Amino acid sequence: MPKLKLKRARKAKRPLAGLGSLPNFRLRSPAVLACIPLAIIILCAWGVAVQAQEAMEEVPLTPEDVQGVLNNIWILVAAILVIFMNAGFGMLEAGFCRQKNAVNILSKNLIVFALATLAFWAIGFSFMFGTEGGGGFIGMGGFFLSSEDPATYGLDPFPDGLVIPVFFLFQAAFAGTAATIVSGAVAERVKFVDFLIFSLLLTGISYPITGHWSWGGGLLADVGFADFAGSTVVHSVGGWAALMGAAFLGPRIGKYNSDGTPNAIPGHNMGFAMLGCLVLWIGWFGFNPGSELAASEAVPYIAVTTNLAAAAGGVAATITAWLVIGKPDLSMIINGILAGLVGITAGCNAVSYLSAVIIGAIAGVIVVYSVLMFDRIKIDDPVGATSVHLVCGIWGTLAVGLFSMDAGLLTGNGINQLIAQIIGIMTIGGFTVLLTSIFWLGLKSTLGIRVHEEEEIKGLDISEHGMEAYSGFLKE
Amino acid sequence: MPKLKLKRARKAKRPLAGLGSLPNFRLRSPAVLACIPLAIIILCAWGVAVQAQEAMEEVPLTPEDVQGVLNNIWILVAAILVIFMNAGFGMLEAGFCRQKNAVNILSKNLIVFALATLAFWAIGFSFMFGTEGGGGFIGMGGFFLSSEDPATYGLDPFPDGLVIPVFFLFQAAFAGTAATIVSGAVAERVKFVDFLIFSLLLTGISYPITGHWSWGGGLLADVGFADFAGSTVVHSVGGWAALMGAAFLGPRIGKYNSDGTPNAIPGHNMGFAMLGCLVLWIGWFGFNPGSELAASEAVPYIAVTTNLAAAAGGVAATITAWLVIGKPDLSMIINGILAGLVGITAGCNAVSYLSAVIIGAIAGVIVVYSVLMFDRIKIDDPVGATSVHLVCGIWGTLAVGLFSMDAGLLTGNGINQLIAQIIGIMTIGGFTVLLTSIFWLGLKSTLGIRVHEEEEIKGLDISEHGMEAYSGFLKE
Amino acid sequence: MPKLKLKRARKAKRPLAGLGSLPNFRLRSPAVLACIPLAIIILCAWGVAVQAQEAMEEVPLTPEDVQGVLNNIWILVAAILVIFMNAGFGMLEAGFCRQKNAVNILSKNLIVFALATLAFWAIGFSFMFGTEGGGGFIGMGGFFLSSEDPATYGLDPFPDGLVIPVFFLFQAAFAGTAATIVSGAVAERVKFVDFLIFSLLLTGISYPITGHWSWGGGLLADVGFADFAGSTVVHSVGGWAALMGAAFLGPRIGKYNSDGTPNAIPGHNMGFAMLGCLVLWIGWFGFNPGSELAASEAVPYIAVTTNLAAAAGGVAATITAWLVIGKPDLSMIINGILAGLVGITAGCNAVSYLSAVIIGAIAGVIVVYSVLMFDRIKIDDPVGATSVHLVCGIWGTLAVGLFSMDAGLLTGNGINQLIAQIIGIMTIGGFTVLLTSIFWLGLKSTLGIRVHEEEEIKGLDISEHGMEAYSGFLKE
Repeated sequence: MPKLKLKRARKAKRPLAGLGSLPNFRLRSPAVLACIPLAIIILCAWGVAVQAQEAMEEVPLTPEDVQGVLNNIWILVAAILVIFMNAGFGMLEAGFCRQKNAVNILSKNLIVFALATLAFWAIGFSFMFGTEGGGGFIGMGGFFLSSEDPATYGLDPFPDGLVIPVFFLFQAAFAGTAATIVSGAVAERVKFVDFLIFSLLLTGISYPITGHWSWGGGLLADVGFADFAGSTVVHSVGGWAALMGAAFLGPRIGKYNSDGTPNAIPGHNMGFAMLGCLVLWIGWFGFNPGSELAASEAVPYIAVTTNLAAAAGGVAATITAWLVIGKPDLSMIINGILAGLVGITAGCNAVSYLSAVIIGAIAGVIVVYSVLMFDRIKIDDPVGATSVHLVCGIWGTLAVGLFSMDAGLLTGNGINQLIAQIIGIMTIGGFTVLLTSIFWLGLKSTLGIRVHEEEEIKGLDISEHGMEAYSGFLKE
Repeated sequence: MPKLKLKRARKAKRPLAGLGSLPNFRLRSPAVLACIPLAIIILCAWGVAVQAQEAMEEVPLTPEDVQGVLNNIWILVAAILVIFMNAGFGMLEAGFCRQKNAVNILSKNLIVFALATLAFWAIGFSFMFGTEGGGGFIGMGGFFLSSEDPATYGLDPFPDGLVIPVFFLFQAAFAGTAATIVSGAVAERVKFVDFLIFSLLLTGISYPITGHWSWGGGLLADVGFADFAGSTVVHSVGGWAALMGAAFLGPRIGKYNSDGTPNAIPGHNMGFAMLGCLVLWIGWFGFNPGSELAASEAVPYIAVTTNLAAAAGGVAATITAWLVIGKPDLSMIINGILAGLVGITAGCNAVSYLSAVIIGAIAGVIVVYSVLMFDRIKIDDPVGATSVHLVCGIWGTLAVGLFSMDAGLLTGNGINQLIAQIIGIMTIGGFTVLLTSIFWLGLKSTLGIRVHEEEEIKGLDISEHGMEAYSGFLKE
Repeated sequence: MPKLKLKRARKAKRPLAGLGSLPNFRLRSPAVLACIPLAIIILCAWGVAVQAQEAMEEVPLTPEDVQGVLNNIWILVAAILVIFMNAGFGMLEAGFCRQKNAVNILSKNLIVFALATLAFWAIGFSFMFGTEGGGGFIGMGGFFLSSEDPATYGLDPFPDGLVIPVFFLFQAAFAGTAATIVSGAVAERVKFVDFLIFSLLLTGISYPITGHWSWGGGLLADVGFADFAGSTVVHSVGGWAALMGAAFLGPRIGKYNSDGTPNAIPGHNMGFAMLGCLVLWIGWFGFNPGSELAASEAVPYIAVTTNLAAAAGGVAATITAWLVIGKPDLSMIINGILAGLVGITAGCNAVSYLSAVIIGAIAGVIVVYSVLMFDRIKIDDPVGATSVHLVCGIWGTLAVGLFSMDAGLLTGNGINQLIAQIIGIMTIGGFTVLLTSIFWLGLKSTLGIRVHEEEEIKGLDISEHGMEAYSGFLKE
């Protein structure tokens, strides 16, 4: 593997031929509908590919530059851990759903990161961080990652010598997380093609806009809103989109009796679900510590608060479920751990170890009651995504205002931070509800977002994908 | 994700309100029993939260400090790999057990790391490394990770500029490993609540005490006992605790015929088991090389000896099983790889490549015969945890005395190291047998440690958790 | 875990006793046949163990040396990610096969990395990189990793201060990948013992020879053949070996009707397959960026091209399958992602982001048609390994000649690179076809490579391993 010189590896040349070799699309087929946004993305790329990417100098060996390389490598590792979370979500959601819909949810969780990558590369990253002519509402410029000048993405001086590619990969992994949260809540009845289009819209437009407000120097920059790793920016955004989807889709057939009482629809593979939970736990060590955006001595501190909150959430949910439901329900243990992780995400760098334990424990209690509450109000969320990511995302964001060592109400620093948190939660949440509702309603009024009744009863694996998840399992 | 300054992120403030929002416990319910130790932990935390955590200076860019940051990042990555081993143990043990107990073992393997994290944070880490008034028997001071002064944990001068949080996380992951080893051996008949309490006692008290003797500057410090990454300190300690549990519980119903001959009770999901084995293999690259506690050129050497021993163990076990049982049994291949990994753990930094292959190969042979032996003596260990972790942990510790390039008997350096190894094995083993026996007997005489016969026959998933692992799997 | 000094950890002593404790082999049993190559390997080790390994100096703290340590740690992490790919291949192939052969394929995918490690340690690494008396055809010297002098392996001056152990581990992981590719194509009818022997021959002899030509300074060194991370050197080599195996074995019973039309034989666990795909996706972040063999600012760029190609491959295959088959087939989504990854492997450091998307998208289209094509020509490849690794490996290698920013035909740099790529593909492919055919035919004429008809019908789990993958699954 002889190494090309970095300079050479960086120069882009004239626009490339070869798109012609993509398949011709039959009009009106769902495949075409699914790939129109993608086609637009690729075609747009022509315009920017011309721009030559700037050369980067080789690493001179001063301590500063070794630190810079170390920062890049650490954030790459963190990005890989976050990308691994897609496997966690896939296993978790597939395990929590019924066997007859397993292929469908596995397919959604697999393709969603591919779509998020392409949409975020094409437009999302620029909408979130671009500075050219962009204002407080939305970023602009540097589409298709056409610039490697940190200034293009509002990152000049860039912290810690990070290069744009690793910052992009880390951010793209976050965008994918927001989209994959949705798949669980709309599972077992949403049309595959609608989910694909919605994912492109969420990761390409909605998530980047609200992300721009908080992390891209946009509207919330001066409010003092603090969301270190994304309890609101990532998790509650995904959670709101999931909630809207679940609401517009309506509950699954058989979820509610004529008298309105809910029926439990247990998952088909708890081994997958538990594995998914642990993969997510691991992935969070990239999600939170990586958000430091540098290799520093603060990183391990963040890893410890993250781990303590996850542990406290799991234990608190176990105890709560034992007391409320009467049994230590595994799905509640799993959701408790995830609740603790979502809860600590906003404040993982700013709270004490004890606060992390308390934040996680409260999240673990909240998630149990939240799951029961959503069941009562007839929001059918097969995997509890809204309880984990939306409700505990809000809790975690508020918790910064309560427990922050610098600015928390309970830590004696007044109420300003808490007010800023509420402003951030409401503005980001309100906009996400508005825009994702438009997306869902637009899809509903055109393609229709729900499969036909007989398809749902037969299972989406056969009706949408023409295959079974466990073929021949029962015959042999 | 704006970065808080490190100084700010480190300051602790007055004790925090909010514990009141934890659920009220109904007395005498198993949940209460399970969480009493936890409650004690959290309540104790009040006392120490007051202590202000010291500020840490920002990283000045000298090569020494970049190296220090690199050390912290590498040990964090290693800790993440070790934490990932919980997924490996969970998949392995669930796969090796019967379907009707899958939820139970998945729940145990998931919650055990949460409990270990909290117990080790509260008291275990201090018992193992604390120096305040602590003697050779047990450490003291710095409970609840209240100090960031390396001296508090006997680590002054701290090697390589590591910060306490990353050292804690790495050590907590090790403590969790010791506890999760137990879950496999007691599977399919232990009461869930007893396992939770035992895990808190093991990771909070027993493991830290023996760990203090070897790694905390305690009783064995002057003996010359060498256990680089924990063949004895972690694996045989977990193995002894597992053996005691299996012995006090007695064999599963149906394991032995009236004439005393054992029946094979095959696992229900070999895909989970094989995945678990490979996750553990990966995790061991954090477990052994991370024990160097620094990023150095010695780290890759340790990774290679670890990998060679794993490979030799797997191949030797395959051949042995083929010759002894007549078939290349997958569960023996899996246990052979794990045996090689456990075997090399004590000496991974001190033996030659060829010695690593020999140590691993012998471990792979030992584990096959050990599994058959335990079956004969009616110790019912569903996953072979005692054979892998206890027997091969002892072998690996002895192997340092035989093959160490500096001090091995077979490498011409006399018998002193071997004697030191035997002393370490016997003292740590003896104490662990004693204390864990007290734990198990105490639980047996109060709560009772074994589920009722009809619960065991029905399966612990229904009787303990009220759910199935593969709900609806056979209907659709 | 007190650290031994590096010097001490490096010194090898006299040859070690202990081989006597390996089991005695009954002549003529398959186990013996399987382990003869291994036995030879271990015995040969005696000769070289005598050679003392050179001492390495401790790390002096100049920026250069911190960078050197960082390089070693990053390549170790990359190696761990590549080794993790064994879990990915195992889950993917087991999921794509039938339940009755699951134990067999899991066993193959688990043991193959153990065998590859030992064979590559003993001879493969030296055949690929050794310089003592070695010529352009094959390398020589430094068997059993007996030298730590980079010059022994043609790596003087060694790039970036890497130490031999980490370079070896990274290369051994690559060799294992080539071997594990084969297991999928020959699944469900190959004899276990033959696969073990073939894996030793492939990773010990065939792969290292062709690898020597391209990466070891051999025959292709002056041709200008560019294969950064191994589209040809690893993937198409594994693919050719897989194709020969599938061809000599012939199709599975029931795959083809009397009129020659193929029957679909669906996989038994799509959850495993999807998990495997994501694990491989993650692993590729070690495979491609790690091939930079250093921690540099080029690494993240490679990670982004890799991720874009994977995403484009998955989306393109989804659309293609939707148009061609009429459904978004999950196995095609999976193979599309892998096709994109294989396709970008050769040029991941040398092409623009847009080119990466195009290369991946084309690979995603190719793989769908390739799978259908191999079905038509009666090459029965249960998991599509030849389509993913061979066909897309060739495509990816050609793509460097088309899209390389320095030397691509379509990027206006003439046809020389493309010609060099074709030469490399043909020479490496031709030799691999020749040698692996000799291996397969030799095995066929001695042991026979295919199980008996009734064993195949009953399933290899029972006939080869005497166990079931999901024991008791259907009874309870």
